[in-house]
Amino acid sequence: MDKLIEAIARSGNPSVVGLDPTPALIPSQLMPTPGKDQNTAGTQPAHVDDGDDADRARSLADAYLRFNRAVMEGVQGIVPAVKPQIAMYEALGQEGVRAYIRSCALAQEMGFSVIGDIKRGDIGSTASAYASHLSGVPGGRGSSPWHEDAITVNPYLGSDGITPFAQAAEASDTDLFVLVRTSNPSSGEIQELKTEDGRAVYECVADLVSEWGRESIGEHGYSRLGAVVGATHPQAGRSLRARMPHTFFLIPGYGAQGGSAQDVAAMFDDHASGALVNSSRGIIGAWRTSEGYSPDMSVEEACDTVSQCARAAAISMRDTLLAALDAR
Amino acid sequence: MDKLIEAIARSGNPSVVGLDPTPALIPSQLMPTPGKDQNTAGTQPAHVDDGDDADRARSLADAYLRFNRAVMEGVQGIVPAVKPQIAMYEALGQEGVRAYIRSCALAQEMGFSVIGDIKRGDIGSTASAYASHLSGVPGGRGSSPWHEDAITVNPYLGSDGITPFAQAAEASDTDLFVLVRTSNPSSGEIQELKTEDGRAVYECVADLVSEWGRESIGEHGYSRLGAVVGATHPQAGRSLRARMPHTFFLIPGYGAQGGSAQDVAAMFDDHASGALVNSSRGIIGAWRTSEGYSPDMSVEEACDTVSQCARAAAISMRDTLLAALDAR
Repeated sequence: MDKLIEAIARSGNPSVVGLDPTPALIPSQLMPTPGKDQNTAGTQPAHVDDGDDADRARSLADAYLRFNRAVMEGVQGIVPAVKPQIAMYEALGQEGVRAYIRSCALAQEMGFSVIGDIKRGDIGSTASAYASHLSGVPGGRGSSPWHEDAITVNPYLGSDGITPFAQAAEASDTDLFVLVRTSNPSSGEIQELKTEDGRAVYECVADLVSEWGRESIGEHGYSRLGAVVGATHPQAGRSLRARMPHTFFLIPGYGAQGGSAQDVAAMFDDHASGALVNSSRGIIGAWRTSEGYSPDMSVEEACDTVSQCARAAAISMRDTLLAALDAR
Repeated sequence: MDKLIEAIARSGNPSVVGLDPTPALIPSQLMPTPGKDQNTAGTQPAHVDDGDDADRARSLADAYLRFNRAVMEGVQGIVPAVKPQIAMYEALGQEGVRAYIRSCALAQEMGFSVIGDIKRGDIGSTASAYASHLSGVPGGRGSSPWHEDAITVNPYLGSDGITPFAQAAEASDTDLFVLVRTSNPSSGEIQELKTEDGRAVYECVADLVSEWGRESIGEHGYSRLGAVVGATHPQAGRSLRARMPHTFFLIPGYGAQGGSAQDVAAMFDDHASGALVNSSRGIIGAWRTSEGYSPDMSVEEACDTVSQCARAAAISMRDTLLAALDAR
């Protein structure tokens, strides 16, 4: 986790921007021109051709990439990392995956650390294949075709679903974040189940993550295996901070989902390190509440507005977080 | 689950072939020509260009697609479904995703039901985006860019990570399989944790899956929300069969991973329905132990051998399964 920690220190900002575009989050100027797709809603024929949807997917994917570029131009020099959520891109099929990979590559070129929010997880041999996200094409020279510096993974399959990722991270000097306590309302259905020995399931997972990371603790005291801990569970976050002293936290759920700066401040260590707070809609959707934006703008003007609003929102989030950390 | 159950009945074969290619599982004739990639192992430069790996990824992706076509030509008319494991394709980046989608589309054209083994799962808004795997491009006409008839999903995030998939499955007449008890050795680390009320975590998940599926029980008595239950846990499988009478099982772990025909037979219902057994290496790798294969063969001859061996292995697996079901 050393490289990420150093990037955070250089920027003086423990936050990451979620690059999670949706049709509702990008200015209308960037959207595919409304065609018959929109006008035939409700009169869908029994057999449809892929053609129209493929065109729409390609146009949307291009729009997502352009939008991401505008966001990143805005927050460059302010935030150390971006976290593209691959689901938003997979929604567009192959063209979306292309936009995801190109967004990651562009982010790395622009100097961001890229956390691929892919939440993969599978049995050992399959996890090894997924681990190519970090370690590269099988039999190749080690350059990852995905351009990610870290990825998120799901722990439900246990250690042999994690070990291949951990090995790939070690070999490629990259990092993992394992889901421990997610930010969504129903996350407790499984994660908060109490086990016989009194621990909740998420605490058992936390202990496994600490154990899995023991061999990879870096110069700054944190292992390559981080944990995803939602801002919406401040008490759990505080107790996990104490429980997992060598585990770096990736914290989703700040802002739009309800987590406050005070909530997340308690999940940092005593040196105001040990955590990275994600905001997606609050940054990339900031243009939507700006008086500076108008639907009559050109594409270039709309992208400039996206950049400026994202930058202002990222600065505001940084200052709020730093103030909350100072006030502890 | 009605369409899948009817396809199984038509073929008289409750098995599915896992399309999980790896470099080791495809004949050398199909592999990219060994170039300097292979010869520079151990002398990897500090900064590598993506170029060589991108070429290798493209060649391997083409090889995977050709290999899958050979396998499917062999098992056509014998097995009702194929289950491509997307990790094997993601290992090749964007080119691999292209081969995955083209394999799925080809499988559908050839009359197979396609179960995308993608094990996705995320918070609600993100799960909605992933659900486009089934329901199509946002704002489009509903044709999925992934060409899947069902997908596997991960339950760790609870019901709001599953509901969007269930809704998409309902809208697009497709199915889900939720991970309940996976086949891998370390799966018990989380799944077998005992909770306060005496249930194991996987039993709690099983009960949630039954609950989530209650609204979508079809003509044949099974809901759209199936469960993944590994053949390597025969006792758990038997008890889950009784516990989840309306949940169809997708059973990995048969053959290479150690599950026997007797083990899986106990996971079917009294009418020899209610489950679909996967085999990957046992079918797609059958050519490797065949006397009919020679490394001197042409590409066409090698593909024919792959087809014939896959067909023979699929028939043998079918007959073994049916005999075990008869013998109950």
